[in-house]
Amino acid sequence: MQNRKFDLLSLGEILLRLSPPDNERIVRGNLLEKQIGGAEANVAAGVSLMGLKTGVISKLPDNGLGLFAGNELRFLGVDDEYLVYDTEKDSRLGIYFYEKGAAPRKSGVIYDRRNSSIAGICLEDFDENMYKSTACFHTSGITMALGKQCRETAIEMMKRFKENGTLISFDVNFRLNLWSGEEAKKCIESILPYVDIFFCSEDTARLTFGKEGTVYDIMKAFAREYPISAIASTQRTVHSPKMHSFTSVIYDAKEDRFYEEKAYKNIEVVDRIGSGDAYVAGVLYGLLCPNGNCEKALKYGNACSAVKNTIPGDLPSLNRKEIEGIIADHETVGYHSEMNR
Amino acid sequence: MQNRKFDLLSLGEILLRLSPPDNERIVRGNLLEKQIGGAEANVAAGVSLMGLKTGVISKLPDNGLGLFAGNELRFLGVDDEYLVYDTEKDSRLGIYFYEKGAAPRKSGVIYDRRNSSIAGICLEDFDENMYKSTACFHTSGITMALGKQCRETAIEMMKRFKENGTLISFDVNFRLNLWSGEEAKKCIESILPYVDIFFCSEDTARLTFGKEGTVYDIMKAFAREYPISAIASTQRTVHSPKMHSFTSVIYDAKEDRFYEEKAYKNIEVVDRIGSGDAYVAGVLYGLLCPNGNCEKALKYGNACSAVKNTIPGDLPSLNRKEIEGIIADHETVGYHSEMNR
Amino acid sequence: MQNRKFDLLSLGEILLRLSPPDNERIVRGNLLEKQIGGAEANVAAGVSLMGLKTGVISKLPDNGLGLFAGNELRFLGVDDEYLVYDTEKDSRLGIYFYEKGAAPRKSGVIYDRRNSSIAGICLEDFDENMYKSTACFHTSGITMALGKQCRETAIEMMKRFKENGTLISFDVNFRLNLWSGEEAKKCIESILPYVDIFFCSEDTARLTFGKEGTVYDIMKAFAREYPISAIASTQRTVHSPKMHSFTSVIYDAKEDRFYEEKAYKNIEVVDRIGSGDAYVAGVLYGLLCPNGNCEKALKYGNACSAVKNTIPGDLPSLNRKEIEGIIADHETVGYHSEMNR
Amino acid sequence: MQNRKFDLLSLGEILLRLSPPDNERIVRGNLLEKQIGGAEANVAAGVSLMGLKTGVISKLPDNGLGLFAGNELRFLGVDDEYLVYDTEKDSRLGIYFYEKGAAPRKSGVIYDRRNSSIAGICLEDFDENMYKSTACFHTSGITMALGKQCRETAIEMMKRFKENGTLISFDVNFRLNLWSGEEAKKCIESILPYVDIFFCSEDTARLTFGKEGTVYDIMKAFAREYPISAIASTQRTVHSPKMHSFTSVIYDAKEDRFYEEKAYKNIEVVDRIGSGDAYVAGVLYGLLCPNGNCEKALKYGNACSAVKNTIPGDLPSLNRKEIEGIIADHETVGYHSEMNR
Amino acid sequence: MQNRKFDLLSLGEILLRLSPPDNERIVRGNLLEKQIGGAEANVAAGVSLMGLKTGVISKLPDNGLGLFAGNELRFLGVDDEYLVYDTEKDSRLGIYFYEKGAAPRKSGVIYDRRNSSIAGICLEDFDENMYKSTACFHTSGITMALGKQCRETAIEMMKRFKENGTLISFDVNFRLNLWSGEEAKKCIESILPYVDIFFCSEDTARLTFGKEGTVYDIMKAFAREYPISAIASTQRTVHSPKMHSFTSVIYDAKEDRFYEEKAYKNIEVVDRIGSGDAYVAGVLYGLLCPNGNCEKALKYGNACSAVKNTIPGDLPSLNRKEIEGIIADHETVGYHSEMNR
Amino acid sequence: MQNRKFDLLSLGEILLRLSPPDNERIVRGNLLEKQIGGAEANVAAGVSLMGLKTGVISKLPDNGLGLFAGNELRFLGVDDEYLVYDTEKDSRLGIYFYEKGAAPRKSGVIYDRRNSSIAGICLEDFDENMYKSTACFHTSGITMALGKQCRETAIEMMKRFKENGTLISFDVNFRLNLWSGEEAKKCIESILPYVDIFFCSEDTARLTFGKEGTVYDIMKAFAREYPISAIASTQRTVHSPKMHSFTSVIYDAKEDRFYEEKAYKNIEVVDRIGSGDAYVAGVLYGLLCPNGNCEKALKYGNACSAVKNTIPGDLPSLNRKEIEGIIADHETVGYHSEMNR
Repeated sequence: MQNRKFDLLSLGEILLRLSPPDNERIVRGNLLEKQIGGAEANVAAGVSLMGLKTGVISKLPDNGLGLFAGNELRFLGVDDEYLVYDTEKDSRLGIYFYEKGAAPRKSGVIYDRRNSSIAGICLEDFDENMYKSTACFHTSGITMALGKQCRETAIEMMKRFKENGTLISFDVNFRLNLWSGEEAKKCIESILPYVDIFFCSEDTARLTFGKEGTVYDIMKAFAREYPISAIASTQRTVHSPKMHSFTSVIYDAKEDRFYEEKAYKNIEVVDRIGSGDAYVAGVLYGLLCPNGNCEKALKYGNACSAVKNTIPGDLPSLNRKEIEGIIADHETVGYHSEMNR
Repeated sequence: MQNRKFDLLSLGEILLRLSPPDNERIVRGNLLEKQIGGAEANVAAGVSLMGLKTGVISKLPDNGLGLFAGNELRFLGVDDEYLVYDTEKDSRLGIYFYEKGAAPRKSGVIYDRRNSSIAGICLEDFDENMYKSTACFHTSGITMALGKQCRETAIEMMKRFKENGTLISFDVNFRLNLWSGEEAKKCIESILPYVDIFFCSEDTARLTFGKEGTVYDIMKAFAREYPISAIASTQRTVHSPKMHSFTSVIYDAKEDRFYEEKAYKNIEVVDRIGSGDAYVAGVLYGLLCPNGNCEKALKYGNACSAVKNTIPGDLPSLNRKEIEGIIADHETVGYHSEMNR
Repeated sequence: MQNRKFDLLSLGEILLRLSPPDNERIVRGNLLEKQIGGAEANVAAGVSLMGLKTGVISKLPDNGLGLFAGNELRFLGVDDEYLVYDTEKDSRLGIYFYEKGAAPRKSGVIYDRRNSSIAGICLEDFDENMYKSTACFHTSGITMALGKQCRETAIEMMKRFKENGTLISFDVNFRLNLWSGEEAKKCIESILPYVDIFFCSEDTARLTFGKEGTVYDIMKAFAREYPISAIASTQRTVHSPKMHSFTSVIYDAKEDRFYEEKAYKNIEVVDRIGSGDAYVAGVLYGLLCPNGNCEKALKYGNACSAVKNTIPGDLPSLNRKEIEGIIADHETVGYHSEMNR
Repeated sequence: MQNRKFDLLSLGEILLRLSPPDNERIVRGNLLEKQIGGAEANVAAGVSLMGLKTGVISKLPDNGLGLFAGNELRFLGVDDEYLVYDTEKDSRLGIYFYEKGAAPRKSGVIYDRRNSSIAGICLEDFDENMYKSTACFHTSGITMALGKQCRETAIEMMKRFKENGTLISFDVNFRLNLWSGEEAKKCIESILPYVDIFFCSEDTARLTFGKEGTVYDIMKAFAREYPISAIASTQRTVHSPKMHSFTSVIYDAKEDRFYEEKAYKNIEVVDRIGSGDAYVAGVLYGLLCPNGNCEKALKYGNACSAVKNTIPGDLPSLNRKEIEGIIADHETVGYHSEMNR
Repeated sequence: MQNRKFDLLSLGEILLRLSPPDNERIVRGNLLEKQIGGAEANVAAGVSLMGLKTGVISKLPDNGLGLFAGNELRFLGVDDEYLVYDTEKDSRLGIYFYEKGAAPRKSGVIYDRRNSSIAGICLEDFDENMYKSTACFHTSGITMALGKQCRETAIEMMKRFKENGTLISFDVNFRLNLWSGEEAKKCIESILPYVDIFFCSEDTARLTFGKEGTVYDIMKAFAREYPISAIASTQRTVHSPKMHSFTSVIYDAKEDRFYEEKAYKNIEVVDRIGSGDAYVAGVLYGLLCPNGNCEKALKYGNACSAVKNTIPGDLPSLNRKEIEGIIADHETVGYHSEMNR
Repeated sequence: MQNRKFDLLSLGEILLRLSPPDNERIVRGNLLEKQIGGAEANVAAGVSLMGLKTGVISKLPDNGLGLFAGNELRFLGVDDEYLVYDTEKDSRLGIYFYEKGAAPRKSGVIYDRRNSSIAGICLEDFDENMYKSTACFHTSGITMALGKQCRETAIEMMKRFKENGTLISFDVNFRLNLWSGEEAKKCIESILPYVDIFFCSEDTARLTFGKEGTVYDIMKAFAREYPISAIASTQRTVHSPKMHSFTSVIYDAKEDRFYEEKAYKNIEVVDRIGSGDAYVAGVLYGLLCPNGNCEKALKYGNACSAVKNTIPGDLPSLNRKEIEGIIADHETVGYHSEMNR
């Protein structure tokens, strides 16, 4: 599929993220930092920054904020061909307000994303060529949880991409404030037959899908029930809002083999939001890049996620050379240079 | 009514205002200034800063943003007894994004105020004592335009306040993006029989209410048809986004007399938003203060509005001593001190 | 005393705090953050944020800075009925400049608080009803150290509140730069007969009051000598300017029982100033809330202090729901959610 | 040429612009605003924002600053296909420092653009298809003045584009600090035989090219000597650094007709830099858009330039709808709405 | 006096100036800009920036703020040899809070300068060599008004400098908030016998010194009564807080000749504070520079003052080359370049 | 040499340092912090802040940026007598862009220092008296690596200072991006015969100079080969970009004695750049102060470096009293006060 226009298209909501500077609280203060985020857009941005061709499928209000969102994605090299603009009178960009924590105060989020333009996304907004334009299609459970029309569109798109030989990637990304565990389980089980690359945390596997045993048992169980070729599960340890460790496990179903590496320890967390999406981006890059495989997926995924934690905002800011340097350092014992210069 | 707890209660939506610093555009940039506004809250704040006791009747989401709104009003001395908090899952604070213009580029607004908590305000949210607690009740056409439930609540409140001997103040504040001229006309004509103090711009009187003749003819026409005691109409000249002139006319229906004064010229506009509400605040202060009358209303109204133009944000920042100094300067010919020190 | 207007009135100086952003030094740079603080005002603000009715008794200059101080307290829900304004020509707000440290550089303070308006506070500034309006009165050794007139006023107020059946709370808050240990000892021992709730650090008890033995011996000694019902002593471990641990001991004299709990470890300190006052606020809330007792005092006190360390500025920003979540997390072993959303 | 990939490709240096905020001076202060500019990139950005497909041909250092420049252009919708990256060890992005004036203090610029990556641009950096990919090619005298290699590359590109049926646009943009008037004259006269659309200020025409007579005489003289089809000349009146008026004259050589309109008066200048480039962008849009002609060029050019003056930074931020609203207002006598909402 | 170490020493208080950014008010907001000012220090800084050797005689607290003040003066090239540091426990730097106005709101100042370290300045703080080290000594009425000790020290210094053949410069700088007109008159008349260069506004001459007639009559009257060689009087027209015009008259007593020039019109005022001191600096530079005379004094004085209005803060930021460019532009009819590049 | 004007003159390039605020990346964002740095200037500033008289020998462009650099050094008390200004047309200040890291992302630097004014520095720029004006002369390998003319000037200056009885201090400061290890070795070995005080890291001694054995062996080897009296080597442990430990070894060749002390642990790193230069400054202060010796050098060196890590920017901000407090704390077991107040 080298000759397709895109390596990756992702489908999902793009949100306006507003957050007080430093450790200020939402309930006080006079400034907000204005950024763009959204699980699937974060993934496309990460893969784009690593060097592949990506785009986002989404619907934005036809106003300055919608354009800002599209512009920010283009800034990161994400193509805007499949961003459609909603000219309805009350069209709006979903918003979330994010407040950074410090132990023992947790970070906090206020969502204000109902009735945003993405809720009205439909198949008619896009032409049929889209389904043949990409090597991989990615979306997440958040998109499924944004209302009936959005879910039906997403599922139908997934099917059409699949029919056109596209790899399907899906991240469960369970959000209790958007839907219940039961709703999630029912919906996601209905689409797993189409999924090739599956991201699911151990907690969600247990609590939402009722899986049991070790993380290895869980992964194998999914692979037995559905024709998934790769399953990835992150393993984050939150020492405090400002200090995490991170690694992951990837299961290659065809090879029946697990890939693991030692954790990135003592990550100095600047902004944790989007580090899960950066993981997905790294994994997809590792699979979709020339000679991609699960081992690369693991290394790129872990490194991208570790680095994202040090970057303010949802969206990653990184490049392949930097990530490969981080991987090399991670694998090296002994002298590390202190600075890139 | 000296013995009532409040001199003024106003009813209306409190919005989160987000605006880029300086002359930056909404479609770019990484910071937004976070402020609170809303026509009726602006009025209550202005009257409070002039020295009377005021409160706002409104409904806010029970989250950090709703609390921020309430806190900011308390900062200005506005009582929060009648701010009720909406604990519904998707309760939200209405938002508007404001971009400052510079000639020939106009200022611009993006509204995102649908489905905010105020839309669900109802009589049951407040106890009956409220209707006996204030000398004056103020609301505006914006409140009427925020949906059926909000409108019905507002009209019923107006009636109950009136029954309890409260002065009723109403500002037409026509916003074409909220309702049509026809809807506005029908609704407002139905409530004018309850109104004592009426604010209506000359343009709106002509275009929406179909009045004709001079501004004096128009005012007299309203006073003939309805039992209004004072009618006020602002007269703003916009030389450019950064330079305005401002004055107004007030008609005292009982005395059948018009009050006017020379315009404040060459106002160096820092932020025009809320200057109309500051006018209403000044007028109400002039009427409600000890020995209040239409002449004071005119002077305080014009000065408050002129000063508000020089203050960033929707909400005024002023005090009675300052306003009286501005009025004295406005009326003085000759030497003016250059600085307050 | 449910029917009193206030749950808590505190008496003390309100200061303007000016501090360079981030880790900038006072001797350089072009910006200062402008905030309000003061031990007793911080306490009133904390108790107010937890949901009780509080006010501050203080004297402020009648200028923009004095008003700013009053406004900021109202922002936090603190009543301004007993803030009196000083119209003397050279009236001033006390100021302190605060520079944040980073190991091994300590934080530093420059005080500029002499001759501030509070120094002239007198009984005649307040009417007699004040003494019957609150369930609890709080002040601290800082107020005693601000000069003869301020001290005499504070002591006389304490007596009048006591006569009216008010609980008296006192925090030693020893500051060597304001008075000597000897002066402090003599003054405080003269007022301890009126004190019900007493806050004294172990170090101060030893160095200033000459107490000996364990912290338990010290507390019992105070309770033997004076009719104090509750004594609280904080236990802070400063690992570095950016990392503290915190807990405390409270002695219930009537029950002759000590309350303790495990420390909050690895607090990520954003701003340590005011965390002692937040402790006092939490303890007073725990005692004054419905069904209050020393156990609640301990839990709320420790949690409020731990959280305050993560908040920029002197004044706390917190609420009861958040604090109860922090307490629940502190007491839970095992899975903690990473974020509030 | 509807079927070409681009409507416009421009060739030129992209600079990092660093400027103190507000009216701060370069010789003081601790912050610089970081933006991107450059005459030809500004033109491409303006045409892109108006809705046509554009790209920039340039050479950037292969580091974070070079990528930033490319990202900012993509943010504005400009394609980066012909941005090539210079991996030489000392490759650098040209910089200029800009200080905003206020009467009687002029704005000031410090250039630090020598030895930047563009100086090494050569034909081999680009493939031959480029010359067939655009309807119009634009560059300016600045590019000619950046050194021998850059000039020769530019001239050769101009010829190849011309050979492929591309419209050639050229803006004299004379900068005395880059080359002498004589050098400029000699170089530009050698390329005028290839130019279709020519931008030259009246002053430069007189001082550098030795033209005489009225502005109309000058334009006709150029058109007589060279096969230029459209000549445009701006007419700016600088009342003060913060207040300008602006209009222009366009000569349609084929029709032998001059296009003029009344000036935009009292432009509230926020940032004058780039307003000449925005003029070129508006003119090119007016010529290249469907049914384009010199009348449209005049209107779009003047409006784009007027609006750019109100936008911070070199790069424009505007859109076609807004510009058409500005034009409509400019042509309307009487009532103008004060705000876009 | 070419061989003296300094061209100018000035004596006066150095203040910390704190002002809200943009048009924010003192009563609100969370940031203050931190700068240094003071009439006599502003003068020394201006003369230093023009290229002469200057120092300030003052007393500062021995803390970070005092050092900041000294550092800022050194930044501008002012020597700190005669800055002495006050190690008293409560030593403090005087402060003033400044709020920028916008018509019709005036700028405002809150002074907090009582009991600052300068109040204790005495002859013993400086060694005798100081009196032989400078060609000119400057101070102002503000220094005289800062208390008995400060005044006596200032007068005695003036005498000692005079005895050593130093030119004495004095600016009345009347501040009603520091002393009464009567006090000022009595004090200043007692020192005028020592003054060579005298700055006095027409208003002050009339109101405080009881002079009558035209500005020329007034100047001649001073020159008749006292052995003053040059008298300067500024003429500022305040169109609004953001727009002034400025010129001045200088009387050369020996030549009995008045120097005047046309006003700088439409000065775009960024910060008016210190523009009077910049005038004094320009005049002193014009007199003290090689071949100095009253004509140069007039030109440099007017230009320095005009430019200072465009600079944020009290202290000037300018240089001789820039000022001479401004003068040249001021004197030129016709084409002016728009920008320095 | 008490009677020399300077205690220290250092020779080196002064750079403009531009860095994104907080953890923002160079490739994004709209603001840069503007500071001054440069290894040798940092050393002079540190020694000046500790209380000795210092100056910097350098060449700066004659524009606002060059003046800014000189002003910032004067701000820190560094004399500008030997800063010469380059009036060539394309004179420029070298720049470096610095991005702060967070584990596992390293800090990064982009240099843009080629062709800066220092490259043209020559003996003729300075008069002969300079060589007799200072007790100590310091430069570093960076100056040697800035090109042939700069190197030759530096070596010749070193010789002339030496001839005049000046102590010569030299810091290897090896930068691979400026020259190769071989070039460095050859050049530095040629100047070591003139060096009295030598700073060389263990890594550089091994990799560049081919030294072997323990750090003690290495130091002795240098002392055997060259007439160096003191050799210092830092020992930094980088736990993460935000957490370092630091100590050093100093070898007194005459006494044949090593000085060492326990490390400063858990330094909370705010800005690591310049901490090596602060070490040199502390060592030189310890040697050059009254009764200076290697033991003082060690203590001051380690403390200055530890503190510099907590200060934003290249340049130190500290004073002798503070450093001595840090040393006392470092040497004390048991109770440390938490704050300086």
